[in-house]
Amino acid sequence: MPTTDNGTSSAHHDNSYSSLPNRMVRGANGIDYAYRDTAPNTDGGVPLILLQHFRGNLDNWDPALIDTLASARRLITFDNTGVGSSTGTTPNTVEQMAHDAIAFITALGIDQTDLLGFSIGSFVAQQVALIRPAIVRRLVLASAAPQGAAGMHGWAPDVIGAVGRPETSPAEYLGVFFAQSSSSRQAGQEALRRMYARTEDRDAATSWATREAQYDAVCAWGIPDHAKLQRLSCLEMPVFVANGDSDPMILPHYSYLLAGLIPQARVKIYLDSAHGFMFQHHTAFAADVEAFLGDPH
Amino acid sequence: MPTTDNGTSSAHHDNSYSSLPNRMVRGANGIDYAYRDTAPNTDGGVPLILLQHFRGNLDNWDPALIDTLASARRLITFDNTGVGSSTGTTPNTVEQMAHDAIAFITALGIDQTDLLGFSIGSFVAQQVALIRPAIVRRLVLASAAPQGAAGMHGWAPDVIGAVGRPETSPAEYLGVFFAQSSSSRQAGQEALRRMYARTEDRDAATSWATREAQYDAVCAWGIPDHAKLQRLSCLEMPVFVANGDSDPMILPHYSYLLAGLIPQARVKIYLDSAHGFMFQHHTAFAADVEAFLGDPH
Repeated sequence: MPTTDNGTSSAHHDNSYSSLPNRMVRGANGIDYAYRDTAPNTDGGVPLILLQHFRGNLDNWDPALIDTLASARRLITFDNTGVGSSTGTTPNTVEQMAHDAIAFITALGIDQTDLLGFSIGSFVAQQVALIRPAIVRRLVLASAAPQGAAGMHGWAPDVIGAVGRPETSPAEYLGVFFAQSSSSRQAGQEALRRMYARTEDRDAATSWATREAQYDAVCAWGIPDHAKLQRLSCLEMPVFVANGDSDPMILPHYSYLLAGLIPQARVKIYLDSAHGFMFQHHTAFAADVEAFLGDPH
Repeated sequence: MPTTDNGTSSAHHDNSYSSLPNRMVRGANGIDYAYRDTAPNTDGGVPLILLQHFRGNLDNWDPALIDTLASARRLITFDNTGVGSSTGTTPNTVEQMAHDAIAFITALGIDQTDLLGFSIGSFVAQQVALIRPAIVRRLVLASAAPQGAAGMHGWAPDVIGAVGRPETSPAEYLGVFFAQSSSSRQAGQEALRRMYARTEDRDAATSWATREAQYDAVCAWGIPDHAKLQRLSCLEMPVFVANGDSDPMILPHYSYLLAGLIPQARVKIYLDSAHGFMFQHHTAFAADVEAFLGDPH
């Protein structure tokens, strides 16, 4: 770890997500996965592995959220197959993404983990818990929806029009991830500033092929199929479902549906926020996640 | 309206639910329905009709709740077929109870109404909205669950053991309708006092035959049938789903499920309360219901 002549800020800086080194690990599937690990030399304890949103890479996690959560536990972020700096081709189904996430977790030698899935990452997290329940201790589903729910076949035209184009802008990002209020927009500006504070060793941008494959997977996940809702009834681990009250991408309605379908679920909707509620309310959300993950029941 | 020499308290007393006269109306099905009406001579406006819980009659509504709600709108409580002072035999299916409720509403000459269904009354309210959507403007589902949801085939042994016996006691009522905390138990004592303040023209007690028929209907409603959950997707009216956080009779889990299955639903879980959350939190709940029923959207 590099040292600087500014003890205080370096101590903060060196431990923060913004200065974590990029690491690589090869899975049994031959994929080289890019990841960051807040406590790589920790033995024991259950880490929290994060599954990223549509088109997001390692730099699209708000360092303020990661740093707050990492004060109490080991956190690992990673690029799934074909995303950002990871090798391979992004698959076009959530099921294959789940197999690829399991291959990454296995490659790190982790037997059991907590998972936090965000947006499409929440779809992958559900699928991991269904395919390989033994490795998932507890599950956090953020801006999430169950497979097959009615009314979510693809994102609303203004949403995919904003975040689905070849080139995206901060303004379009803010329009989906933050609410219309000045308080939420201000929080969005601050989150963006934190995400762009890192200047060295930024992750590779996600490709158009990744965008196409991920959106195919999102649309397939949203094909209405009432019978598929029953899949979640077999999840036995505790689950925390959360969303922003004004999320235009995945409506809070689906958080209630998840909480009603999953046997051991709790749910919280955060006010004055949208798809990026976790970043806007990072202090409150991290405290809620910590209370959930640390709950003995 | 009788007058007394105590202007202030008589004005309060005469307008309160505790002193409303019992009325009867004959349905086209030949049933004479017992009911109370807070504004029987009102023309126009949409009333709010209440559907009562397991074994409950006209006197099992907390007057504090009714009086608060009635300050802004017309409220009607009634005994469905075979219950309390109504004639006929209590049917053993929610579907027939819904037909009987529709016959009552029709007998009053009401074309459109808001409905508040409580517990088994919430099952009947859902069924009314499914059978005869045109008469339901807005729907409040209190301590509610959808037909066919997993894990609710009959009530937990301690619950049916407390409220399902031939003779019930205030202590057993409090154990199901109020939480364990001293604040909730205190609220329960106060609610019971309000319900028993009426000494004249109390409703007839519900019979053992009503208890048996209603519990058959409750168990049938709880036969697990995932496909039946889809029924609610056709409800087009706005719905407010509410429950107490510690309800042992119908878990809050099912409120989330309802809110996730009904297209236009909002949900609120009230803290430190159980099956009788509406009575304990009558001020807050009445304000929430009023905001919901008066919402132009």
